[in-house]
Amino acid sequence: MKGETLQLGLAGMGTVGTGVYETLCRNYSLLEARAQISFAVKRIAVRDLARAREVEVPADLLTDDWHELVNDPEIDIIIELIGGTTDAYALIKAAILAGKPVVTGNKAVLAKYGSELFQLSAEKGTPLYFEASCGGGIPIVQCLQNSLICNKVESIVGIINGTSNYILSSMRETGETMRDALEKAQALGFAEADPSFDINGWDAAHKALILAMLAYGTPLSADKISVYGIERVESVDFRFAEQLGYTIKLLVVIKHHEENDSLELRVQPSFVPKQHLLASVDGVFNAIAVKGDVVGETIFYGRGAGKNPTASAVIGDVVLAMRECHLPGYHTGFQPYTKQMDVLPMAETVTPYYVRFRVQDKHGVIASIAAMLAKYDIGISGTTSTMCEVDANGVRWNHLVFMIHACKWVRLKYVLRELATNDAIDRHPVVFRIEDLNS
Amino acid sequence: MKGETLQLGLAGMGTVGTGVYETLCRNYSLLEARAQISFAVKRIAVRDLARAREVEVPADLLTDDWHELVNDPEIDIIIELIGGTTDAYALIKAAILAGKPVVTGNKAVLAKYGSELFQLSAEKGTPLYFEASCGGGIPIVQCLQNSLICNKVESIVGIINGTSNYILSSMRETGETMRDALEKAQALGFAEADPSFDINGWDAAHKALILAMLAYGTPLSADKISVYGIERVESVDFRFAEQLGYTIKLLVVIKHHEENDSLELRVQPSFVPKQHLLASVDGVFNAIAVKGDVVGETIFYGRGAGKNPTASAVIGDVVLAMRECHLPGYHTGFQPYTKQMDVLPMAETVTPYYVRFRVQDKHGVIASIAAMLAKYDIGISGTTSTMCEVDANGVRWNHLVFMIHACKWVRLKYVLRELATNDAIDRHPVVFRIEDLNS
Repeated sequence: MKGETLQLGLAGMGTVGTGVYETLCRNYSLLEARAQISFAVKRIAVRDLARAREVEVPADLLTDDWHELVNDPEIDIIIELIGGTTDAYALIKAAILAGKPVVTGNKAVLAKYGSELFQLSAEKGTPLYFEASCGGGIPIVQCLQNSLICNKVESIVGIINGTSNYILSSMRETGETMRDALEKAQALGFAEADPSFDINGWDAAHKALILAMLAYGTPLSADKISVYGIERVESVDFRFAEQLGYTIKLLVVIKHHEENDSLELRVQPSFVPKQHLLASVDGVFNAIAVKGDVVGETIFYGRGAGKNPTASAVIGDVVLAMRECHLPGYHTGFQPYTKQMDVLPMAETVTPYYVRFRVQDKHGVIASIAAMLAKYDIGISGTTSTMCEVDANGVRWNHLVFMIHACKWVRLKYVLRELATNDAIDRHPVVFRIEDLNS
Repeated sequence: MKGETLQLGLAGMGTVGTGVYETLCRNYSLLEARAQISFAVKRIAVRDLARAREVEVPADLLTDDWHELVNDPEIDIIIELIGGTTDAYALIKAAILAGKPVVTGNKAVLAKYGSELFQLSAEKGTPLYFEASCGGGIPIVQCLQNSLICNKVESIVGIINGTSNYILSSMRETGETMRDALEKAQALGFAEADPSFDINGWDAAHKALILAMLAYGTPLSADKISVYGIERVESVDFRFAEQLGYTIKLLVVIKHHEENDSLELRVQPSFVPKQHLLASVDGVFNAIAVKGDVVGETIFYGRGAGKNPTASAVIGDVVLAMRECHLPGYHTGFQPYTKQMDVLPMAETVTPYYVRFRVQDKHGVIASIAAMLAKYDIGISGTTSTMCEVDANGVRWNHLVFMIHACKWVRLKYVLRELATNDAIDRHPVVFRIEDLNS
């Protein structure tokens, strides 16, 4: 390896691209000494050559055509940080076909085209690195690919969207509404102007799909995952959660069911026991708990987004790519992308539940709910209630919470459907899964 | 890489060796598919051929002479799990000289001979892998070597001894004494018959030396690190800690001081703020917080010891070794082992402190301590006290706690020395550092 200088092609000079370029310049000598590899950024593709930049870049490095990077025979490795799914997909595919290892931080393109791109990467023996696509600076991808390689992954449960975690942490601390917490997050730069994908769970879902494809070596598409966001979380639920020994986190849950070799794949706000470490992950931080059959439980914690944490992940991959481009036929699929694993239908998934009904304050309401649960053979582990409001007609309403023993979701769904005909019960109860993180 | 079968030589069939062999057999097809490498255990060196084994091993694999592994030209990689520092040192050295990459889980041999062995590894271009030597199943070594490679490491703070953490957790929960908690841990198999190195901090110190050598690429020896164990932690300190918003953990602290390029290296029971994640790491679990200039704070959590978690780490290294044995001249030193970094004298280290004096219950005692602190220009952030005991002479003694603002240890030491002449104050106050984990 010594003596040779590897040439990098960087596509994209947005926030992360700038962080990568700055860090490569600033910590160059450290990196070269540690990696035992000499390297240089040979070419940078940007959208607009004329745009003012946060960091000074020699003009002769720049081009506004990413094809130049792929077509340059001297460029060894491509770093894709242009975002979106159109050009990014075309660039990654072209680079793999040209035999140039690719490093990307683009979760959207992998969630959409990952199955195809990983398959192509394996066929061509050209690795595709994607540490920065999941969990920002947290090295979850390399840990799954390398350190934990001998483990059957039993489950991956994580907080992998910083914006929603900031909002939930803030709601818990201050008692404010989701909307108020979101506005505060936006004012502080912790949420984007359009935070839809953070709020509705889809940003976390994209990352979950990538982690699941990686851990189980199976192709997956977005229609396989059940996704609920934090839109319906109310401060009253935090009060009940606190009282019952839980907190609420937007969790990604990926679980392998050995008995039928199927995957459970879901994203939703969940009740997390306060004594579990994930309950203490606050603000914009992310954390991912991986259970392996050999290693037991491990948790990885860090900044899940942002210019520098993401740049750290990208550069970690670049160094791997530089080392591994000397290995003939090497690719980064966790295992060959051949088998199609079944995904468990949501109806079949089993957890305990927290169900909050808004009910009229009158005799017989608790009894009718309890009777319906009993009819479907669903156990109750506890119940609690609090005054809600007096409506315009002078009717008193209460929040009535049932803690439900583990059962298939389909059974609870039947109960909720039957109860919807009862006028004393609001038709839209709030349901959270309670995650048993120790099983 | 395809087509070739790599041959492994396993030295040692104790707890971890057995775990490695079992896991290699049980998860073989998974590993082969993920690693894209075919491999076999060709030879196993054990101390006593006749001994009954927990796991069945073909007799023709066994030898009682580890030299056979090193001398066998067909063996590609050596796994050293024989423990101790004599044979292990000789084996690792011989393997490196023979150009065979080595995987070890032996912290004692690396803490003692690491500087020499890493230097030799770099000179010969023969990698030495050691994930399992620090933090059991937690992939801290690979994370520092690969994922976080572009980071200047600002600090590493961790709980890396499971036995002492189990004891401290137990003391906090039950109020029992250190001795009682230790006996319980021994009964449950969480502490060895001779737990000296766990209790006196030296097991953690060995791991700290390895992590520091890795992160800073500097040779270090055991005389460079300040080590205090948990022997003097009393349940009254847990009560004060709780009241003041802290808990007590045996912490490894490795900190880089940019201004004079020196290292702070210490192991001691410390006050950890309750809201920091490390405060919630209980029982035999380990956790290591790494701060990098690019990635910010990351934390790695998992089982720090035990047959299977350690086997997971060993096998992660074996796969790396199998891949990387195709890279000419590759070695695993984090950066060339050339510079000798200074270690900050303990007298110069700066933290806030918790100091508990045992004092006679009489007028003027608080004033005399406060005056002495003022004389040395040391600030007090708070003070609290509680009844201690009435001694055989009928004298009432109190526990008197001072919370001290950050200052150089040498200044506080002078104060304690001067106060030792005061008969109303017990000569051996209990001092804990308060770790400011957010700076």
